[in-house]
Amino acid sequence: MNSQPLKLKLYSYWRSSTSYRVRWALNLKQIPYDYVPVNLLSGEHLEPAHLARNPTGGVPVLELPSGQLLSESVAIMEWLDEAYPNLGAKLYPGTHEERAQIRRAVEAINSGIHPVQNLRVLKYLSDDQGVRSKWAAHWIRVGLMSFEQLLPKNKTKYCFGSAPTAADVCLLPQLYSANRYQINVEHEFPRLHEIAKNALATAECQRAIPENQPDAVK
Amino acid sequence: MNSQPLKLKLYSYWRSSTSYRVRWALNLKQIPYDYVPVNLLSGEHLEPAHLARNPTGGVPVLELPSGQLLSESVAIMEWLDEAYPNLGAKLYPGTHEERAQIRRAVEAINSGIHPVQNLRVLKYLSDDQGVRSKWAAHWIRVGLMSFEQLLPKNKTKYCFGSAPTAADVCLLPQLYSANRYQINVEHEFPRLHEIAKNALATAECQRAIPENQPDAVK
Repeated sequence: MNSQPLKLKLYSYWRSSTSYRVRWALNLKQIPYDYVPVNLLSGEHLEPAHLARNPTGGVPVLELPSGQLLSESVAIMEWLDEAYPNLGAKLYPGTHEERAQIRRAVEAINSGIHPVQNLRVLKYLSDDQGVRSKWAAHWIRVGLMSFEQLLPKNKTKYCFGSAPTAADVCLLPQLYSANRYQINVEHEFPRLHEIAKNALATAECQRAIPENQPDAVK
Repeated sequence: MNSQPLKLKLYSYWRSSTSYRVRWALNLKQIPYDYVPVNLLSGEHLEPAHLARNPTGGVPVLELPSGQLLSESVAIMEWLDEAYPNLGAKLYPGTHEERAQIRRAVEAINSGIHPVQNLRVLKYLSDDQGVRSKWAAHWIRVGLMSFEQLLPKNKTKYCFGSAPTAADVCLLPQLYSANRYQINVEHEFPRLHEIAKNALATAECQRAIPENQPDAVK
């Protein structure tokens, strides 16, 4: 008999924002997982093996020990809090109304910024890198301005208090993307920059950042 | 003493997809509400009165009897199921994993289609109505093809079984938008068309459709 607990398996790409979200969320929940890279650059996500896991070809995909496959990072975060209510951090802590405020901030990034500036949209928009960068930087900037307004007036270590929640989990990868489009987060969004600094000082976040993944290209 | 139960107040615009979602969700939960129109065409959403309700200027906004304000349609739907677990329909029914599949389908529309084809993106994209329509129709078509693949193999009356869930609540407004961009849903997406027909035959959905709102322009 095998006494090893069955592990979750995460299909991920190092630079994918939504993979980054789920990696950090898993770490916050203290849930170990096996990392399976899916190379978006070489088109591995569109091969039959990955399409069988997720018909839309997206990463991340979380494979449960039962073989069940979950995708869409926000759906995975909600599942993590439901399936492991007493393990690690709560991604959506508080009263119903406090949870609604966290989800509002999550959506400000998840539906308000990320989809408009992701690669498939930029590719369809133009072949010109300058046009793409201008578009991406515009939507990230506008979206982060909105996001900041959804945070409580009193500044805290993280978006909603002294511990990271699903809102922070979405914020960090979005700031990573902001950096790629030459937005000076420290200068333009000092409060968000502080939150990121606090997060990046933790082991859970460090283990999740793109550069520390096995498939990272230096 | 007033024995009337305090009512929720919904700030809504008749043609807004996300307002449509919340109207139908409230009806499915059997929760009465007062309708307060916010005219997006005349820019009412950017006036101080509405910005005080939602700093991003978006509709819908749900005002609770306590005065608390909720926004982002998906955050509102999650709140409705949490705050009223035994009232009306369950928007996210089933096991943790079944709920994750519903949320995946919700996200395929909420983050996969709607944000890329909404008005603020189209306005920034181009002044040319033809360019806008081509863009919107492209993303709606690609997104609905993905959405269809996330549904269970066995066709049922609604997306996930015999009763509408949050997935249907997102689907109907998206199909309404597809029609506006001349996508022939009946021909291209017969399964989704059937689901919409089933939904539109119910009083809950009829009361939520854009044309039946007090601020609808005929």
